[in-house]
Amino acid sequence: MKRFLGLVLVGGLCLSLNLATAQTVDKAIKYRQSAFAIMGWNFGAIVDMIKGKREFKEAEFARRASVVSYMSRIPMEGFAPGSDQGNTKAKVEIWSNSDDFKELMKQLQTEADALAKVSKDGDFDAAKKQVVAVGKACKSCHDKYRNK
Amino acid sequence: MKRFLGLVLVGGLCLSLNLATAQTVDKAIKYRQSAFAIMGWNFGAIVDMIKGKREFKEAEFARRASVVSYMSRIPMEGFAPGSDQGNTKAKVEIWSNSDDFKELMKQLQTEADALAKVSKDGDFDAAKKQVVAVGKACKSCHDKYRNK
Repeated sequence: MKRFLGLVLVGGLCLSLNLATAQTVDKAIKYRQSAFAIMGWNFGAIVDMIKGKREFKEAEFARRASVVSYMSRIPMEGFAPGSDQGNTKAKVEIWSNSDDFKELMKQLQTEADALAKVSKDGDFDAAKKQVVAVGKACKSCHDKYRNK
Repeated sequence: MKRFLGLVLVGGLCLSLNLATAQTVDKAIKYRQSAFAIMGWNFGAIVDMIKGKREFKEAEFARRASVVSYMSRIPMEGFAPGSDQGNTKAKVEIWSNSDDFKELMKQLQTEADALAKVSKDGDFDAAKKQVVAVGKACKSCHDKYRNK
């Protein structure tokens, strides 16, 4: 009976640990998705300004570029171990191939920083070209590490 | 017949405009919720460090305080007109009482900035008190403007 109770207790502990882990994983997924949502909102507005779908305002362009640059450093923490499972399009290769994934994330940061800089400097010809570089950095990672 | 076709066309136009508006509203809701999620993740870790539920690391504390401060300026743009409807706990009073809501958001920014500053300065006695001030700023707005 003692042994049975012990098993029940251990079982209960494992269950609550699993639930805690599941909650942590869900939060990690939500965390990185939130960062990408904020990045996408601001980068989307920048792209729309270039395409003429939205009024081109230099100050707004520079402000949004700065947000994209800042946010590019946020998602990494959300790629926690085990968070390939759940409500996510993340491919498992993110974790099995993590050096390459981190390198692509670093490239995004470098390109986004450059976009923020030229925008802040008021060089919008350079900024328009740099938007393409940021878009390519997004795409190269999505192509490799995001499920459709 | 022409008139009927005209009505159909106008109806179709309204429908697609409504759909476009609904998409914009959904994105705005997601935008602000994403900002709050990132704020909550980082502020939660800070609170856990103070409670001893997580190892207290000064550099990490200061880094997270800085993220909370930065993020406190992000959500406002997501409180777009019409975005009281949808998957949101936001009360309609946010828009009918917008000066007061903006004032509470400004208070959060002020308190979060102060937390980031004392943490950066390494004054963690002040930081622990300032965490309470930030928590109160969150709560005063939630109590008034967020549905349960």
